[in-house]
Amino acid sequence: MRTLKLTLSYDGTNYVGWQRQENGLSVQQLVEEAFVPLVGGGEPPTVAAAGRTDAGVHALGQVASATLDIDLPVAAIRRALNVRLPSDVRILDVEDAPPGFHAQFHATGKSYRYRLALTPVLSPFDRWFVWHVPDLRGVEAMRQAARALAGTHDFASFQAGGTAIRETTRTLSRVALLERGGELHVEVDGDGFLRHMVRIIVGTLVEIGAGTRMPADLPGILAARDRRAAGATAPPHGLTLVGVRYAMLRSGRLDGC
Amino acid sequence: MRTLKLTLSYDGTNYVGWQRQENGLSVQQLVEEAFVPLVGGGEPPTVAAAGRTDAGVHALGQVASATLDIDLPVAAIRRALNVRLPSDVRILDVEDAPPGFHAQFHATGKSYRYRLALTPVLSPFDRWFVWHVPDLRGVEAMRQAARALAGTHDFASFQAGGTAIRETTRTLSRVALLERGGELHVEVDGDGFLRHMVRIIVGTLVEIGAGTRMPADLPGILAARDRRAAGATAPPHGLTLVGVRYAMLRSGRLDGC
Repeated sequence: MRTLKLTLSYDGTNYVGWQRQENGLSVQQLVEEAFVPLVGGGEPPTVAAAGRTDAGVHALGQVASATLDIDLPVAAIRRALNVRLPSDVRILDVEDAPPGFHAQFHATGKSYRYRLALTPVLSPFDRWFVWHVPDLRGVEAMRQAARALAGTHDFASFQAGGTAIRETTRTLSRVALLERGGELHVEVDGDGFLRHMVRIIVGTLVEIGAGTRMPADLPGILAARDRRAAGATAPPHGLTLVGVRYAMLRSGRLDGC
Repeated sequence: MRTLKLTLSYDGTNYVGWQRQENGLSVQQLVEEAFVPLVGGGEPPTVAAAGRTDAGVHALGQVASATLDIDLPVAAIRRALNVRLPSDVRILDVEDAPPGFHAQFHATGKSYRYRLALTPVLSPFDRWFVWHVPDLRGVEAMRQAARALAGTHDFASFQAGGTAIRETTRTLSRVALLERGGELHVEVDGDGFLRHMVRIIVGTLVEIGAGTRMPADLPGILAARDRRAAGATAPPHGLTLVGVRYAMLRSGRLDGC
């Protein structure tokens, strides 16, 4: 048996998200089915991803792991998977990983980017990738609020309602607002993310930028530990999982995570 | 009556091209129909574009003209058109033009960009916008050939077969190969273009880059004045009409063109 680390990029527009679901086609299902001819037509391996991206959310550098009995060189595995996958899901890289490697459990950090367009007209090429907020004026206030979110906090207010996870403290090593070619990017790096966390952060920042909330409201929103205290959830299509970090890939040992 | 100059951007993936056709939805039809409520529900104006982009070809700065009886300020016209148009067709700007202005007849130059990806795996985000040519190696040979295409030549060999146009001499002020973020861009500026001209130029350059033709073949290809002498037509989806130039918009007079 070999454990593989896959690096994937996908346009999430046409999928129900990463995870297999009854109600539509997921990226996970496509990737698992692409393995079928590689395992002699038998049961394909379970492919586990670092981040379970929602419907409409994109990935530049999603990471997934799979354990299977396969002899091919990694470049041939990559080619064979891409031949089977539709052009909106691409395997960028296949590597051998230490036995027991799990893309989700061993991840030590993830980076997300949320793209906002403040221009009066949204480019047709951005319509599935950028949230159009032409009336946003208070970028400086958003920047102030972003600074208050960086660091270690209890992010319970920034977790989707109805989620069972109790341990809601996370560390964001970076919350940056960058102006990039006429867009405003919200870039968030952290050790872990609650369900909808980046989208609720962006929704709250946009309300601050629109003037309906103040940067000074943020400590109170965090302290409330209540989803209703934060802003609306930003739409999924502006969000991209940029990359995933693993301590073990530097040390080469799984116990290094 | 007012004559308007429209600047448009569109993702050509879902259309039969700019021009109205029996067999499907064109950008021209959409733009003309978007005018219907602005002219009191009557017959909309004919909207003429500078370049009749093919099915699958995109536009960043297409220019079109329309003459109609309308009282609204230009910004309100832009907003009203965009409300009616699908998100893959956007009016970027509406301006008043001198009476008699015609986007095609008065154009003095157009710029096209053709995007090529030489990477082993094509990004899912580029699949409708970039031609994937992973085996291309001879970029320096392509550059040499591009230099031979710049200037004034009879481009009859670079015109789609079956076209009736007899006067096939055109001047390309610029044929440049640029490496841009892992892509190779072929940028072509000229005073006018024959049907499929940029796509046949790119198809021929790619054959030179792949080594099946030589840069030294180009003078012979031009001299042949025969479509069969040039390379295959590159697929439409890599091509974007970047912009259109007008002498009269600098001089403010139509007879200045």
